[in-house]
Amino acid sequence: MKKHDQDFMKRQNRLTVFEMIKNHHPISRASIAKRTGMSPTTVSRIVGELTEQGYLLNSEQVSAGLGRKSTLLGMVNASVLAVGVELDRTRMSIGVVDLQGNMVCSGKYPRVPEESAEQTLMHIGAAMEELVQQHTIDRTRIVGIGVGLPGIVDNEKGVVLFSVQLGWRNVALAEQLKELTGFEIAVDNELKVKALAEQLKGAAVGSSCTALLGFGNGVGSALILDGEIYRGVMNSAGEIGHTTVDPNGTMCECGKTGCLQTYINISSLLAEANRIRPVGTIEELFEARQAGERWAVQLIERALIYMAITINNVVCMYNPDSVILSGELIDKFPDICDEVEQLYFSRFVWEPLRASFAFRRSMLSEEGVMIGSGLLSQNRFFALA
Amino acid sequence: MKKHDQDFMKRQNRLTVFEMIKNHHPISRASIAKRTGMSPTTVSRIVGELTEQGYLLNSEQVSAGLGRKSTLLGMVNASVLAVGVELDRTRMSIGVVDLQGNMVCSGKYPRVPEESAEQTLMHIGAAMEELVQQHTIDRTRIVGIGVGLPGIVDNEKGVVLFSVQLGWRNVALAEQLKELTGFEIAVDNELKVKALAEQLKGAAVGSSCTALLGFGNGVGSALILDGEIYRGVMNSAGEIGHTTVDPNGTMCECGKTGCLQTYINISSLLAEANRIRPVGTIEELFEARQAGERWAVQLIERALIYMAITINNVVCMYNPDSVILSGELIDKFPDICDEVEQLYFSRFVWEPLRASFAFRRSMLSEEGVMIGSGLLSQNRFFALA
Repeated sequence: MKKHDQDFMKRQNRLTVFEMIKNHHPISRASIAKRTGMSPTTVSRIVGELTEQGYLLNSEQVSAGLGRKSTLLGMVNASVLAVGVELDRTRMSIGVVDLQGNMVCSGKYPRVPEESAEQTLMHIGAAMEELVQQHTIDRTRIVGIGVGLPGIVDNEKGVVLFSVQLGWRNVALAEQLKELTGFEIAVDNELKVKALAEQLKGAAVGSSCTALLGFGNGVGSALILDGEIYRGVMNSAGEIGHTTVDPNGTMCECGKTGCLQTYINISSLLAEANRIRPVGTIEELFEARQAGERWAVQLIERALIYMAITINNVVCMYNPDSVILSGELIDKFPDICDEVEQLYFSRFVWEPLRASFAFRRSMLSEEGVMIGSGLLSQNRFFALA
Repeated sequence: MKKHDQDFMKRQNRLTVFEMIKNHHPISRASIAKRTGMSPTTVSRIVGELTEQGYLLNSEQVSAGLGRKSTLLGMVNASVLAVGVELDRTRMSIGVVDLQGNMVCSGKYPRVPEESAEQTLMHIGAAMEELVQQHTIDRTRIVGIGVGLPGIVDNEKGVVLFSVQLGWRNVALAEQLKELTGFEIAVDNELKVKALAEQLKGAAVGSSCTALLGFGNGVGSALILDGEIYRGVMNSAGEIGHTTVDPNGTMCECGKTGCLQTYINISSLLAEANRIRPVGTIEELFEARQAGERWAVQLIERALIYMAITINNVVCMYNPDSVILSGELIDKFPDICDEVEQLYFSRFVWEPLRASFAFRRSMLSEEGVMIGSGLLSQNRFFALA
């Protein structure tokens, strides 16, 4: 009954009112009460708190039909900011995100794959300070920092349990970054926050069951149910890259054979390409395909087939109303989405579910993880405050 | 905001109080209020209604410490009964289930695969009447009929959209069976109700995220999240049997190639066995393996490897705390569970999640679908009444 615990209910109600105003402003107290099923007293109390804290505008008076005038509530967008960080093997992106998920400012920074977690965190802290000063951001409005990264994250404790890409194991990221910066820290898997961002303000707005797929240096997925990240018991649901599709297949970095990602991810594709001739980048591989080199045509065709299979498998398992494609491969070669849909859906997506989902490309692309991390940090602030 | 709609809240509160008493009786009103976070007034109102309707015992008075005595509430088990039906290609099972999911009485009946849906429903109605009379069940206590079957079911409308095993498409089962019997009808996919039963009173009691796998004439899965069936948008989440594991694999009955179930389900195994020599039943195949016939050893070894892969893929996608194995193959050859765990987990289950779930065999076996269907029907009754 943890779910129904009173403190939890209070926080949940606060978050519900906050989300309601954020998504439907301008809105009246009465309308919030009606739409949420909360009592008018509870709504008024929460609205009072939020107004006092400077998050709400009691914006205008309108005549509600024949009756008395009612105050409409709006958000002060810049009243709450959060820093969103995307962390990857060779790159860090840092942005400041407002209440609506708009990017106020952002920057990209290189990361040395060999550096320690401590060094990476110091770089994040320094880059963030620089960004905030450079853009004269009101530091007092920043409610926290959200960090999205590839790997298995204990999101409650803010610990990175395991990340092949970063080479980390058991890094107490939240604790260390809080000590460095003084801010509250939220940490999560990159695809989970990216999916949250796409559902809140990207390609899946209005969806009640969104599956986001990421195709890049790894392959993964994330699921958003009724606006919330589906986590599973260890926050590692969605690890479709390590589902096995061939027990006799290629060795995966995880030590198993025939993981789905070995057919699609960039490093696997390059490794196979280099059996034929030296190929340095994924762009070169796609150029070879364009030039009609048969091995490249076949290698990429196989990757696209396995992308269609990934979509099928996600649809069979989660039965979502939306499937969003994202990741470096999709950002660099956006035509992939149409190709996969037109050439391979009819063969590889199970017929009873073929029409059950909207199929779209990520709208937030490279900014998705930053925006999602920032929004996660804000949600945490409003739920806990 | 449908979720927060007032009627929904009322029904949800009623179901919460009901579930609380069912699972924790004897329990006081104050304790229900405390554990659910509901107001004492709301709890008292609901308890009053349920008592009036004959579902509750105001069982005993105990001294609550130094204060005044408090009434403890219990359930009248036999006050609510439901009929649970399992429907399969060649078989129907019908049982009467009480509030705790105990089987009061049950019967098995043959089904002719070629018969029409109308004929099957008439047989269900007749068999049910016979069962009720034979065991002198108080008909007024039966709140509804639940039906579990293989296929894609619109559980809200009670329509079987698609069932390969039954040969049905768009059968308005709930409507037709209600017309025949007069009872309220709940219809759902068999694995979903079986998972519900295992979570409520079988192998996964106490689990907050249960994945049930079914290995038999098909391969499928179901997920129970915080006590509720995870459905997806078309109630067809969990169709792992049609996830593709080999784009060049064997043709599946669905028209795709290389579906996971083609490596495991009974008809596929028998079809492959018959390439070697006539094998009529799955028992014969396992006997051939026992006798050391190499083709049978290999065929079953491959099936067990794909079972381990199924477990891995479910664990990667859902990240559950419990994985329950069920189905005809498991019921007939229960040693399969140990074999799969001991021989194949270390090779085929992704290392970071290998210790993240409890692994068990179904406890309710052949009764699971009947019990789950009955409980589903009761839940519907309490939520809607």
